[in-house]
Amino acid sequence: MRFLLAAGSTATAHIDGISAAGADSEAMRYTPGADAELVVYGDAVRAPAVPVSPTGTPTPAVVTRAAREVLGFETSVVDAGLLENTGAPTIAVGASAGEDVREADPVPTGPGSFTAAVQLGRALPDDHLVLGETIPGGTTTALGVLQALGEDVEVSSSLATNPIERKHDVVAAGLDASGLEPGDCAGDPRRAIRRMGDPVQAALAGVVVGALETGARVTLAGGTQLLAVAALVRHDGVDAGFEIATTSYVADDDAVGFRTAARDLDLDVTVTDPGFDPEHVGFGGYVAGEAKEGVGMGGALALADAAGELGAVRERAREVYDRVV
Amino acid sequence: MRFLLAAGSTATAHIDGISAAGADSEAMRYTPGADAELVVYGDAVRAPAVPVSPTGTPTPAVVTRAAREVLGFETSVVDAGLLENTGAPTIAVGASAGEDVREADPVPTGPGSFTAAVQLGRALPDDHLVLGETIPGGTTTALGVLQALGEDVEVSSSLATNPIERKHDVVAAGLDASGLEPGDCAGDPRRAIRRMGDPVQAALAGVVVGALETGARVTLAGGTQLLAVAALVRHDGVDAGFEIATTSYVADDDAVGFRTAARDLDLDVTVTDPGFDPEHVGFGGYVAGEAKEGVGMGGALALADAAGELGAVRERAREVYDRVV
Repeated sequence: MRFLLAAGSTATAHIDGISAAGADSEAMRYTPGADAELVVYGDAVRAPAVPVSPTGTPTPAVVTRAAREVLGFETSVVDAGLLENTGAPTIAVGASAGEDVREADPVPTGPGSFTAAVQLGRALPDDHLVLGETIPGGTTTALGVLQALGEDVEVSSSLATNPIERKHDVVAAGLDASGLEPGDCAGDPRRAIRRMGDPVQAALAGVVVGALETGARVTLAGGTQLLAVAALVRHDGVDAGFEIATTSYVADDDAVGFRTAARDLDLDVTVTDPGFDPEHVGFGGYVAGEAKEGVGMGGALALADAAGELGAVRERAREVYDRVV
Repeated sequence: MRFLLAAGSTATAHIDGISAAGADSEAMRYTPGADAELVVYGDAVRAPAVPVSPTGTPTPAVVTRAAREVLGFETSVVDAGLLENTGAPTIAVGASAGEDVREADPVPTGPGSFTAAVQLGRALPDDHLVLGETIPGGTTTALGVLQALGEDVEVSSSLATNPIERKHDVVAAGLDASGLEPGDCAGDPRRAIRRMGDPVQAALAGVVVGALETGARVTLAGGTQLLAVAALVRHDGVDAGFEIATTSYVADDDAVGFRTAARDLDLDVTVTDPGFDPEHVGFGGYVAGEAKEGVGMGGALALADAAGELGAVRERAREVYDRVV
């Protein structure tokens, strides 16, 4: 099994009120690289700090790192459009950071990265890939591609109060700028990403398509951003079975309808309750509805649960938090 | 413990009769990336094939990968001037592939990469780093920097008959083109690399300098190329203790004087006899004097020996060979 993390950026994150994946807009530039460093090394290396939300909730990378320390799985990172140089080793797929989704052509590298990622997914020798993401603003671009594909799915948020109206306004402006109606990109995932998505989606959807061709087991580890990736894969004409694993914070959000959407995309669903202490200074934020998912946390917890190590991972997450935040 | 592999290229490898790190000059372009992929994934991914010498001796990456499968150590790869896109995740230090050492300024990115690597070495949280290299032609550029520093050390070869005269001629031509006498770069390792070395030396020497500053344990894993790295570190004014681990094929080569040179550089030395079967179709080449070292093999075997797993790693190496060659 290999955990493959796609790390990238979209200028969509800098729209006011869209993302809590960083203390402020400047810190968010470093969030994807910092998340990758934390999972790979157990601490920030080139990034200035481990990411926390404006209210002090730590990045879900803390939990994925904790799972890695307990379970010992292999990890690789794909550079899916990083703005800042990361100390984590990265695989290149020709991605540049995405522009604001309200522009006409925000992800020109998307189709090329999709193709490079298909080849990567075919070539990786692993029998099981678990795929996660780190991209601030990624739920808005998830809504973007879902609408472009004509998939009626709502998206989650790293904020406790989901700015869903704001996201719909942004996506509507993006469709307008791209000259698209909802559903115009049905059957054309590369176009959906290029016009309405982000570079992380291209890397992940491509790897899924390539890996499924070889018969590998594929688990998407995450929430509605990974649902969007699954939709992109289905719109590429792929019928093969694969899985999605997320946290109860996403799956139990009635505004999203995660389980129904996953079933409509013919995905096997695993939901894990992290069981965080609501009184904990950092992880209490999750119980209050912040962050919810990201950096493969839901998949990492599913692996921990399957190994009977969920309690050990939760305890290790507190240790990692104390060490790095 | 982390195994850090610096992978890069120098056009010096394409001088006739210098290197056996690939079936031919074209295949050698892919050797460093292929070695990295083999160690990380257990097979070639983007590279067209696993490297073998013209006579069929497999890359030492097979042995390092076998040690990794048995011992399970973490591995990261530094892009120290790769010519071809690798499927292995890589850390950037701003390196470009080196030109022929007979040119005046073959490694203009060397000083910048050295500085980036010092910062990386300082930032890595590991308590023990084991450092290896993969760069065809690297023993010639090792001789280049050793002469530029004024260190009277001979170098080993991936060929059974060391073309040592050829290497001295190449280095003499390089010194001439660079307007240098032997010893002119004493105390200035960055200049030695830029004028007479290769980009892998910059990455490794920099990481050593940075890691030693933090008190980490450092083991250079390799032969005379790593002796050259140690010399560069000493010429940067570093007195702290560190180690070198190599194979008996290098250490027992009387033409080289490895142990004496390592002692003069104040290094703790570990020598491991791989104990390969001389009748084996692939590893027999090592017993006959080919390849000898590389991709951290000597360090990987030292780790295996310390864990009481040398026999298991040798057996696993045969399995990896059967799987990938």
